[in-house]
Amino acid sequence: MEDLVIRPAAEDDIPALVAMLADDPLGARRDSPDDLTPYRTALQRLSGDPHQHLVVAEREGRVIGTLQLTIIPGLSRRGATRSIIEAVRIHSDERGSGLGTRLIEWAVETSRREGCQLVQLTSDKSRADAHRFYERLGFEPSHIGFKLPL
Amino acid sequence: MEDLVIRPAAEDDIPALVAMLADDPLGARRDSPDDLTPYRTALQRLSGDPHQHLVVAEREGRVIGTLQLTIIPGLSRRGATRSIIEAVRIHSDERGSGLGTRLIEWAVETSRREGCQLVQLTSDKSRADAHRFYERLGFEPSHIGFKLPL
Repeated sequence: MEDLVIRPAAEDDIPALVAMLADDPLGARRDSPDDLTPYRTALQRLSGDPHQHLVVAEREGRVIGTLQLTIIPGLSRRGATRSIIEAVRIHSDERGSGLGTRLIEWAVETSRREGCQLVQLTSDKSRADAHRFYERLGFEPSHIGFKLPL
Repeated sequence: MEDLVIRPAAEDDIPALVAMLADDPLGARRDSPDDLTPYRTALQRLSGDPHQHLVVAEREGRVIGTLQLTIIPGLSRRGATRSIIEAVRIHSDERGSGLGTRLIEWAVETSRREGCQLVQLTSDKSRADAHRFYERLGFEPSHIGFKLPL
């Protein structure tokens, strides 16, 4: 893992990013590399927002992981700022290699540096392996995550 | 409910907002009106961010409810923008009055207007009444919510 780089995602990363989003039991139903236009538009929205960190993990010029970290100020918990981790993906060749841990550690360190008091994420109930992974990293499964598609 | 107004929170609302945050089984351990300074600082951070909507529900000059809505662009789900609802509070005199429904409906309509494809929120596992409330409004309890305090 010595030569691993975690850096902001760029336009050129989009094909590799979308391939990882779609190469997933849930993502396969929701993401597709057939038309990259909506992903390009989304990356532009993200790049202009200082509270957004969409990053890729790269090794030897290959994009092998990604996550999105959002910094959210708030009033509750005595004016605490929190961060939310979304869209964690590890390339299928790299699963079980410790890369997921490296990416989450990056997100936790970045959250701390940005003054967050809390890091949170939700994980689909079907992702049992992911739940064990987050618990090992110290996350508490204290909440129920609700979603409403519009 | 005819004269209910839902509007952005302002500096003068902070005492009423913090009183509502603290008047809650979980909030009582985390929020306190003894020192409003951190809440004032947090409101300034929120007010400067176009993706943040911290609102109060007001009737006859009285603040009786609040929630925070955050708009989050993203790459996954074909470049979908989602929104996250946090820190929902209803004044204890107003619980069961339909005000919670009005606030969540406001959040859903605002999310739709801002181009979101998904609204999400997490609720502590102990809040059984809240879970029934969100399910009645069409939210699916499809996820586990993990938190890591820093």
